[in-house]
Parts: sequence; structure tokens; C-alpha cells
Amino acid sequence: MAIKFAKRIEGLKGSEIRELLKLTEKPEVISFAGGLPAPELFPIEEMKEISKVVLDESGTQALQYSTTEGFPPLREQIAKRMNSKNKTNITKDDILITNGSQQGLDFAGKAFLDEGDIVLCESPSYLGAINAFKSYRPNFIEVPTDNNGMIMEELENILSTTENIKMIYVIPDFQNPTGRTWPLERRKKFMEIINKYEIPVIEDNPYGELRFKGEGLPSLKSMDKKGLVIFLGTFSKIFCPGYRIGWTCASQKILSKFIFIKQGADLQASTISQREVSKFIDLYDLDKHVEKIKEVYERRRDLMLETMKSEFPEGIEYTHPEGGLFTWVELPSHLDSRVIMQDCLKNNVAYVPGGSFFPNGGKENCFRLNYSNMPDDRIVEGIKRLGEVLKQYMTVKENV
Amino acid sequence: MAIKFAKRIEGLKGSEIRELLKLTEKPEVISFAGGLPAPELFPIEEMKEISKVVLDESGTQALQYSTTEGFPPLREQIAKRMNSKNKTNITKDDILITNGSQQGLDFAGKAFLDEGDIVLCESPSYLGAINAFKSYRPNFIEVPTDNNGMIMEELENILSTTENIKMIYVIPDFQNPTGRTWPLERRKKFMEIINKYEIPVIEDNPYGELRFKGEGLPSLKSMDKKGLVIFLGTFSKIFCPGYRIGWTCASQKILSKFIFIKQGADLQASTISQREVSKFIDLYDLDKHVEKIKEVYERRRDLMLETMKSEFPEGIEYTHPEGGLFTWVELPSHLDSRVIMQDCLKNNVAYVPGGSFFPNGGKENCFRLNYSNMPDDRIVEGIKRLGEVLKQYMTVKENV
Repeated sequence: MAIKFAKRIEGLKGSEIRELLKLTEKPEVISFAGGLPAPELFPIEEMKEISKVVLDESGTQALQYSTTEGFPPLREQIAKRMNSKNKTNITKDDILITNGSQQGLDFAGKAFLDEGDIVLCESPSYLGAINAFKSYRPNFIEVPTDNNGMIMEELENILSTTENIKMIYVIPDFQNPTGRTWPLERRKKFMEIINKYEIPVIEDNPYGELRFKGEGLPSLKSMDKKGLVIFLGTFSKIFCPGYRIGWTCASQKILSKFIFIKQGADLQASTISQREVSKFIDLYDLDKHVEKIKEVYERRRDLMLETMKSEFPEGIEYTHPEGGLFTWVELPSHLDSRVIMQDCLKNNVAYVPGGSFFPNGGKENCFRLNYSNMPDDRIVEGIKRLGEVLKQYMTVKENV
Repeated sequence: MAIKFAKRIEGLKGSEIRELLKLTEKPEVISFAGGLPAPELFPIEEMKEISKVVLDESGTQALQYSTTEGFPPLREQIAKRMNSKNKTNITKDDILITNGSQQGLDFAGKAFLDEGDIVLCESPSYLGAINAFKSYRPNFIEVPTDNNGMIMEELENILSTTENIKMIYVIPDFQNPTGRTWPLERRKKFMEIINKYEIPVIEDNPYGELRFKGEGLPSLKSMDKKGLVIFLGTFSKIFCPGYRIGWTCASQKILSKFIFIKQGADLQASTISQREVSKFIDLYDLDKHVEKIKEVYERRRDLMLETMKSEFPEGIEYTHPEGGLFTWVELPSHLDSRVIMQDCLKNNVAYVPGGSFFPNGGKENCFRLNYSNMPDDRIVEGIKRLGEVLKQYMTVKENV
């Protein structure tokens, strides 16, 4: 015999995109590739105080094992916050604390997907979710999208003609990678369809609170009458990712399975991290902190889009996100963003080529830009460099 | 349609044992059921200082996303420590940081097990590992054990007559639940057999450093010439479990798969927790801290065993662990520890019934006792209560 991996692992190809992204980490590269929050906004001084308070008040409990479900006061705070921000009507018992919302994606795959089952998702969709699901060997059907997110007629058409759909994965708010948001009407229509077909929905919502202007739209979870929507939230984008504290909100029928999975996966999230995040919400104003983040990200979005307008050649389209971290660029269909990326790297600028966001491949003429993690001057300089490279490709085309 | 879970989830029965253990959490119950370290030994004052130092020195990095593999200085410290304590010859590149060693168990299942594959384990074995593996739907073959751990003739017999064995799970040091340790000769024989059959081995080692007397035995990993042994370690028992920091040490061929799995599962372990544990090792003497833990646990083990000797009726056997957290009690074979547990709870004392530690069921006449988490007087009082209940059952037997 010899070492033999499970089929789910043998099937994995080395990630070309991961290798490419390693090249973006050199200090001279202005990288719009990551999805990182702005570290200069992290509440470092506050957390120094908080960690002392938590250890003073409850050191032995904070450093000990705790329950799989998570720290009850934090679950309470999350429920209250969701009821306010996401218009839900839930209690702490509907919340499981996870290691970031990424863990909720893995658990969804583990809970629902047998080999060959079908997952529906937006086309394009979040790379990390696609990879998490892939290890359970499903097939993906990409539901076509327009500038307002998933197209409901297409969704209904797929649902009415396809067997064995086990779940639907969506990011209705400031989607990763496109930055698009579903309008209210589309959300209502979506829930109408879902209620008819009764398919579990993963509503991934890491960016929902980062709306730069106006009122947030109701979450799908808030319209969920049949316990079908599994809402994934996280403190990574509104607070700090370093604690790895996210949550899953779902009906008891589903949440109980997730709790069981969590127990086998890693017993529980960090006791002390949970208590520290909870104490921050107690002692400080998280809403005010989010306002500060939004202000900075809005300015950076504006700066990026303005610079793109002046520096990008004609014929390139991109989204105008109302919040979140990303904009999505579409080049003429004959261009390949992986090829162009090589020239970008020579010019010390980087993005994520778009192909990886399509689980079934294709659409190489797109790429994702992140604006949250870069100071203003670097945004301008980086977009200029990118514009220069793109001009060469657009010119070449005209000459052909 | 309707909500339909994956087969791996539909197959899960509600855990009877979990329900039972909930009853042990009442404050009036002296519970020997958990596997918790002694919280009064946690370095609370030191961690208050550490968290300030980490945030002062590297706040923006500590609160940001980081690499999936883990914080390089911590991986370096772990490699150095393993080379000293576990007699290995590894570098930081052989280490992946996980959420406790429990996560390494889940990853092992994910990496190796297709439905119907066979896992070998000691009989009995760690409940949490059995549950983690079960979600990948393998079959278990329990290898018989004696007071020196797994019996090598039985192992070889199974290996030579069984197809489709994908991995072997063992805890050679102060095993959970029995507290038994494999002697050197048995370790050597095991590796000889493994090298012949080339089956991956999960060496779970959460307790290895907690040896009360004498020198530690070489780990299986230290004798691994073919890259077959996957060593799981954790700071939960030698430091604090609340940070959820453990690690996997494996050959590149295997570790690269685990890293890929970690990325899909939750991206990375907590950045700040990793840096805090690392800083503790920098600024304090972890060895000295472990000495303190061992001193307390040794005293508690002695006290528990002495009290069992004086308070338990004749005809009950139990292990004499040289380290770790547990002793394992075997009653006459006609007795059922689940039934007796009901009377124990009435008497406000608790243990974990042994049946759950056998993946294929049976052996209800055993139970596990933990001595690390209880002050001396409660150990004496709890064992007395337990002895009273056991006397009733042993007497009943004699009368029958």
C-alpha cells in the first residue's frame, strides 16, 4: 500500500491563482488583489484595555474551554445587532459562533453536500466559498447576473428544470467580487421563489454594514418564513479579522447540525477572543467605529473610480459599488486578465484575475480590485500603472 | 423539495452521552467527566502583560489577516520544542497551526477518508476523534489493547488481512481515555509494521509533556523515516485551551493538503492568539510552567488513586497513569456504567461512561475519570460518593 488521499483531495489541482498571488506580496507591488480591511483603523489602544479588563474580570474562564455554541453574551449582542441592522427577529439561540464566516461556508458544505449534489451560486461568486464547497465534490450551476445581482427569471428557470439542488449560495450585499447589491424587489422575488422550492440558502453577509450612503436593505434572513436562510456574519470587516470571530444564524433544525459539526471540527471558537469582542461592544460604540471605516472606504472607492475614469482606456467597464471592499472590471471579451497580470506585475501593480470566481471556469476577461486596504496616494499610483498596461492591450486590439 | 442534509449528517444520531454530560454541569455535582485543565494554573497576570506587549509591538499585524500556515516565529518555536521534547528532527515548514489539535483530527478525516474506508484505532479511543472521523463515514476497526497500549500482533494481523485501511489513529502517551502509555519496544515494533504497510498514522499527542516522573519516550514521529506519521500537538494542556492553538506536524506531501484544507475551512488560526502564545514562550519559561502543572496533576492523581483504593469495593480495576489527565475504570463485565451513572448523579458525582470510547459500541462496564480539574478535597469527596454507589452495585452482584 501507500499513502492514499480521499477522492475529494486527490481531485484538487494546485491553485494557479494562489501561486500568482504570492508574487503580489513583494513590497514594491501595489496590490489591489487582497480583500483586507484597513489596519490603521483597528482599535489597538481600546483592545489593550479590553484584554486587561477581560483577564481581570474573568481570567480563568477566558482561558478555559467553553461551550461549542459560543459565549452567550456575545451571541446575545449579535442577535440584537442583527435585529437592528439586518431586520431579523432572532434570539441568541439562533446563533453559533464560528472562526470567521469562512467556517460557516465549510459547515454548509459539510451539512448539505453529497458528491454530485448541485449548488447554485451567482456568476461570478466568492472564490473562498467555491473552494470550501468543492471539497465536498458538488457540481455548480452558475446563475447569470446583471448589474442588480442574480437574475430571478434565470434562477427560477434553473430550479424548475433541475433535480438535486441542495443549496443556493448568494452574497446580496456588495458582493465579492463584483461589489453589486440586490435591490429590494429582487430580494422579495428571490424569497418567493425559495419558499416555493424550499431550498436552503446561504446568505453570506460580511460587508452589509459597510454601506456608504442611505439605509441598508433588509437581509434575506429577515424575509425568511420557512427557516431556509442560513445567514453568515463576521466581525472581520467591521472590527478586526485577527480574532477570527464570525457567526452563523439559522433555524434550530439547521443550526443544531452546524453545532454538531463545529464540535467535531474544533470544539469551539477561541474563548478569550469571543470575550474580548463582546467586551468591546460593551464598552465602546461599534456603530461609531463602523462609521469611521465607512468614511475611509467611501473616500477610497471614490478615488479609485475617479482615477480609473481618467486613467483607463475607453471600452473597459466596471461596477460602482455602494459599499463593501471591491469593484469588478470587465475588459473586452478577447482579453485575458491572467496574461495581462504578468505585465502588471512587471509594472508593480496587481489584481485578482476574474476566472477563479467562476466555479465552472471561463470569463478570463475580468478582474477584481480592492480599495479598502491602500492609502490614497498608492491607489492613484497603482491605478495609473494599471491604466498604462491596459492601454497597451486595448491599443494592440485596435491595431489587429 | 425540502431541506435535505448530506448523508453524513442524516446518519448522525443525537448524542445520548452529550445529553447525559449536560446533567453533570450542575454546581452541586462533583464531575470527573470533563477533560479540562486546572484553571488556577493559567498564567493570567503574564497574559495581561503579553497582550499589551503584542498590541504595542505589532497591533496592526496582530489584528489583521495572516497566512494560512500560521505565524512563522510560533511555528519555529514549536519545531524547536518538538525536536527537544519529542526527539523529532523537523523545521517550521513541517508545522501548520490549527484550532487546537481537534482541528487536525477533522483535517485527517477530510484528507484521507472516503465513505466506507477503514480507520484503525485503539480500543478504546478518544471520543472526539471518533466523532470527527465519523462525519466522513468510514468504518472503524478497533485494535485490541492491553495495559501497554495497542497490541502489535493484533495490529499486524488486521493489516495483513484487511483491504482499504486508510489511516491509523493512536495516542501513545497517557491515552484518552485510559491513561496508558506505549513502552519503547512497542513504539519500535509499531513503526516497523507501519513502514511495511505504509499507512498514514495520526499520532495524537496532547498529553505527552505531562509525564510526572522520568524521561519522555520518543514520539512515533521521531522514528518516522517514510513521512507517514502526522503528529498533532496543542497548547491546550500545557498552557491554556482558551486560545485554541494547536498544530499539525507532517511531511510536505501530507502537510500541503492540510494547508489547503485549512484555507477552505477557516482561512487561518487567530492571528493575535498565535502571537500571544509565541510571545509567552519568548518572555516566560514554558518548561517551568509545565513543571508546575505536572506537580499539581501528579498530586491529584495520587490522591484520586489512593482514595479509590480505600473507597472502591473489591473487584474493580483501574489504570495507574504515569502522566496526563485520566484514569480508566473497569467494572465486572455484567455492570453497565450508563445505568450506574444515573445513581451517581443522584449522589452528585459524575464520570464519562465508557461505551462512547468504542466506535463500534459495547464495553459498557467501563468509565473515565479526570483528576486534573478538581481541588484535592473535592477529589476525595467525589471518589467517596462514587465508591458508595459502586458498593451498592457490587453488593447486588454478590447477592444475585
